[in-house]
Amino acid sequence: MSEREQYVVGVDYGTLSGRAVVVRVADGAEVGTAVCDYPHAVLESRLPSGRALPPEWALQVPEDYREVLRTAVPEALADAGVDPADVVGIATDFTACTMVPCLADGTPLVEAGYADRPHAYVKLWKHHAAQPQADRINRLAEERGEAWLPRYGGLISSEWEFAKGLQLFEEDRELYDLMDHWVEAADWIVWQLSGEYVRNACTAGYKGIYQDGRYPGRDYLEALSPGFGSFVEEKVAHRIGQLGERAGRLSAEAAAWTGLPAGIAVAVGNVDAHVTAPAAQAVRPGQMVAIMGTSTCHVMSADVLREVPGMCGVVDGGIIAGSWGYEAGQSGVGDIFGWYVANGVPAWCAEAAGAAGETVHEHLTRLATRQAVGEHGLVALDWHSGNRSVLVDHELSGLLIGQTLATRPEDIYRALLEATAFGTRVIVETFRESGVPVEEFIVAGGLARNPLLMQIYADVTRLPLSVIDSEQGPALGSAIHAAVAAGCYPDVPSAAKSMGKVRAAVYVPDEARAQAYDRLFAIYLELHDQFGRHSTTMRTLKALRRAAVTSREA
Amino acid sequence: MSEREQYVVGVDYGTLSGRAVVVRVADGAEVGTAVCDYPHAVLESRLPSGRALPPEWALQVPEDYREVLRTAVPEALADAGVDPADVVGIATDFTACTMVPCLADGTPLVEAGYADRPHAYVKLWKHHAAQPQADRINRLAEERGEAWLPRYGGLISSEWEFAKGLQLFEEDRELYDLMDHWVEAADWIVWQLSGEYVRNACTAGYKGIYQDGRYPGRDYLEALSPGFGSFVEEKVAHRIGQLGERAGRLSAEAAAWTGLPAGIAVAVGNVDAHVTAPAAQAVRPGQMVAIMGTSTCHVMSADVLREVPGMCGVVDGGIIAGSWGYEAGQSGVGDIFGWYVANGVPAWCAEAAGAAGETVHEHLTRLATRQAVGEHGLVALDWHSGNRSVLVDHELSGLLIGQTLATRPEDIYRALLEATAFGTRVIVETFRESGVPVEEFIVAGGLARNPLLMQIYADVTRLPLSVIDSEQGPALGSAIHAAVAAGCYPDVPSAAKSMGKVRAAVYVPDEARAQAYDRLFAIYLELHDQFGRHSTTMRTLKALRRAAVTSREA
Repeated sequence: MSEREQYVVGVDYGTLSGRAVVVRVADGAEVGTAVCDYPHAVLESRLPSGRALPPEWALQVPEDYREVLRTAVPEALADAGVDPADVVGIATDFTACTMVPCLADGTPLVEAGYADRPHAYVKLWKHHAAQPQADRINRLAEERGEAWLPRYGGLISSEWEFAKGLQLFEEDRELYDLMDHWVEAADWIVWQLSGEYVRNACTAGYKGIYQDGRYPGRDYLEALSPGFGSFVEEKVAHRIGQLGERAGRLSAEAAAWTGLPAGIAVAVGNVDAHVTAPAAQAVRPGQMVAIMGTSTCHVMSADVLREVPGMCGVVDGGIIAGSWGYEAGQSGVGDIFGWYVANGVPAWCAEAAGAAGETVHEHLTRLATRQAVGEHGLVALDWHSGNRSVLVDHELSGLLIGQTLATRPEDIYRALLEATAFGTRVIVETFRESGVPVEEFIVAGGLARNPLLMQIYADVTRLPLSVIDSEQGPALGSAIHAAVAAGCYPDVPSAAKSMGKVRAAVYVPDEARAQAYDRLFAIYLELHDQFGRHSTTMRTLKALRRAAVTSREA
Repeated sequence: MSEREQYVVGVDYGTLSGRAVVVRVADGAEVGTAVCDYPHAVLESRLPSGRALPPEWALQVPEDYREVLRTAVPEALADAGVDPADVVGIATDFTACTMVPCLADGTPLVEAGYADRPHAYVKLWKHHAAQPQADRINRLAEERGEAWLPRYGGLISSEWEFAKGLQLFEEDRELYDLMDHWVEAADWIVWQLSGEYVRNACTAGYKGIYQDGRYPGRDYLEALSPGFGSFVEEKVAHRIGQLGERAGRLSAEAAAWTGLPAGIAVAVGNVDAHVTAPAAQAVRPGQMVAIMGTSTCHVMSADVLREVPGMCGVVDGGIIAGSWGYEAGQSGVGDIFGWYVANGVPAWCAEAAGAAGETVHEHLTRLATRQAVGEHGLVALDWHSGNRSVLVDHELSGLLIGQTLATRPEDIYRALLEATAFGTRVIVETFRESGVPVEEFIVAGGLARNPLLMQIYADVTRLPLSVIDSEQGPALGSAIHAAVAAGCYPDVPSAAKSMGKVRAAVYVPDEARAQAYDRLFAIYLELHDQFGRHSTTMRTLKALRRAAVTSREA
């Protein structure tokens, strides 16, 4: 056995599909992959029964997650041509915070005879109907000076465990009372694989408000809603597992689903963004990983605990066991570029792209690349989806300044690329100023394919910019955790060194451009503080918009 | 003769063509019209000889203006089927400030053997190469506290007589010395028709700094540039004629060009914007006329002399003899809408317009009309071409705030329409606050055809909005002046009452919408003052842009 190559399987559970990747333990080679779309995708308007859902709801069906195990894992093994007997471990990562209400044995309520009750389903990360609960959670925590609040940049999200749990408590008390465990999908899938329920340190900390070995206290919860005081002890608290640990061993049932050997290691659960850091060999303090897609998630480890204003959270062992894991985010990045290309680029420009054999993104990127820094005379604010870090305000909106009659599409496109880079610089500088310095910027996700964007980020942040060397970063990251859980490596950093893949310092800052960007960034920062901190203009615009829509519909 | 209908001819000299209209004296009926394109159009890059011109130059050829008399006037008469013997007068209006350097007999220098000298040509209104001279004129006037400066809102333009004259003096002294008269084209064409050189009170005041019977003094001019002290007395000062007066009688030569009877009245010259006021029956105090096209010019008469910040000028008899004529302006209006449609509207939107049998402007207007005020959540600043009134700053630029991923083209289009209405409201309120109240808003020009735009202006300004009822307002206005010069009416207001055409209060403000707009206008005003008065951000962006272009080209 020791002379044969060993393999692990990483499974990345995304919003619409799950991807399995078979990875060689020795060097991280990705030898086989397969994707399984969730049959029910996201339930946003109706249940499968046809029952309508209110606005802002987003549910999923847990059986879809098992389907990934039954189809994508065997297909990835077949694609790899690997003997399943050579697979020594499996690990998973998941969207978060995605919550499964379960009975004591892990059976989701939706499978326990409540398929026509919306609250019996999985609440996907982007279920935003618990905003009123989140608002109350934050208000009360601030009033009481709850010590955990600064660990989340001063504000917890409606997406997280407590807001979604309070919504369930208040809107379907019968199901709440029936529920034995309020389980992160990241942990539920591990429970399905191993028969063991272990709360992973990552989501327990970032989404479950688990800090310094404690959850929010009974008094606070009871003050939030009478009867909710026992939420933690009755529904949430459970054994915590560190990332890279073995949660258990593959059950016979899960072995049958996957075609993998029963008894192999099943790693503690993880989150898609956080698991990507070791896939990009970013396990040391100062290495900030940005997973750049429609939005950007920033994760970074550090030796020190600091309260960084506007971060999403800091969690002990949240990314790498034994380090403090920091998370921040930009609500809109690639989706702003996509919005502009879909809604703001004229026919003649799209036709020129087509004539050159380019997508519109490629065409605008090529034209914009020819410009000197500042040549378009524009600065934008990248708040079309609000601002996560560091302002934590979803009532903010976009802004573009400097238009003239000579302004062309590539000018606006480049200004939008730059705006997201400026937004990143604000985050990087806020971390630095809080005593958590950033030394290297490592990009994963689809936007890494735009070289102009990458160079802009290097120039704007004055950081060397590395790029992950895998198209399936989260699944590779899960595979790394599987290898550690299987005992092939002593810890995640060791495994990442052998199995992670990064092209280091692919883009380095150019000092002349960096200086020119300093001047544009000064304008960005002026607008950032003006509209993000001092004036209520954007908030007023959203309020007027809502009032106008209401008045027209009335 | 008295039993036959009498007619007059109005000729409107625009930037690219001249239009002649034959009008019935009794009721202003427009019975015939013809247009003549200038053969040389605008010389912006080369002289007819091929000699290259520097940037910012814009010249014309005076013979082109005579061509309008030789072709458009006879064609308009033929179109009207009017016996030329029944025509009792002719009047003209012109772009301004458009300057013709002449010998003592009115011969343009370009026709006196200097056709290869740029400074021998007509300097068109949009010749902007005298900006350095204008800057010095303004700086020195402010230093010396010249009394005339507040009559121009605190700043005179590079387009006007003194800046263009100083450029000629400094750049081609030989031609300057040869020149006997520095003549407004508005007066030169009257000279061609009648053999009389009369400076009209309108351009003498608005463009020639003629105030309270005086021009800027010799000391000031000499301090501006040694030797320039005699500019007024040697090149500029001449008999002033009031609007509607007869400058002279049609010469035999001009009668031969036009086919009109020699000896008929030729009116004192006028300017295209100002002459439009009586065509729209707007001769009383409080009636503001906006000529809305690519840009907007506002003209209004008043009984009182007030110094209105940021106005273009106030001139005794500048619009109607015996009243103070006020002028203000918005640098960019229709050209901002045109820029957006050409550069910011996606193919799918243009296709939807085509499928509906609409232009893109019509399509976006129809979609935007369905919205309640504020529904798009946007506010724009309409400074893509800088700001004329009331900020007088051409380094300003556009701004759009409030974009989200749900923002659609009709949202932005409507926000731009509204921005220009807000800009107008700032002007209207500045006039009011300065003691020159505006009671009615009367629109001429092509943009009057957009009913949504008109309604927005009424709602935003809370003014009844009237619309001129002629497609050729300036030529009709000239015809009115011709009728007065011919003695058919005692004065321009009387003639305007019979011959002018306006649809009164076509759009009236809706109080609910007006209140909703008050809230958006408050945001506009906040942005207006922030970026137009307090911060230098837009100026910095333009400076960075210029530096970037220079660095890239170097």
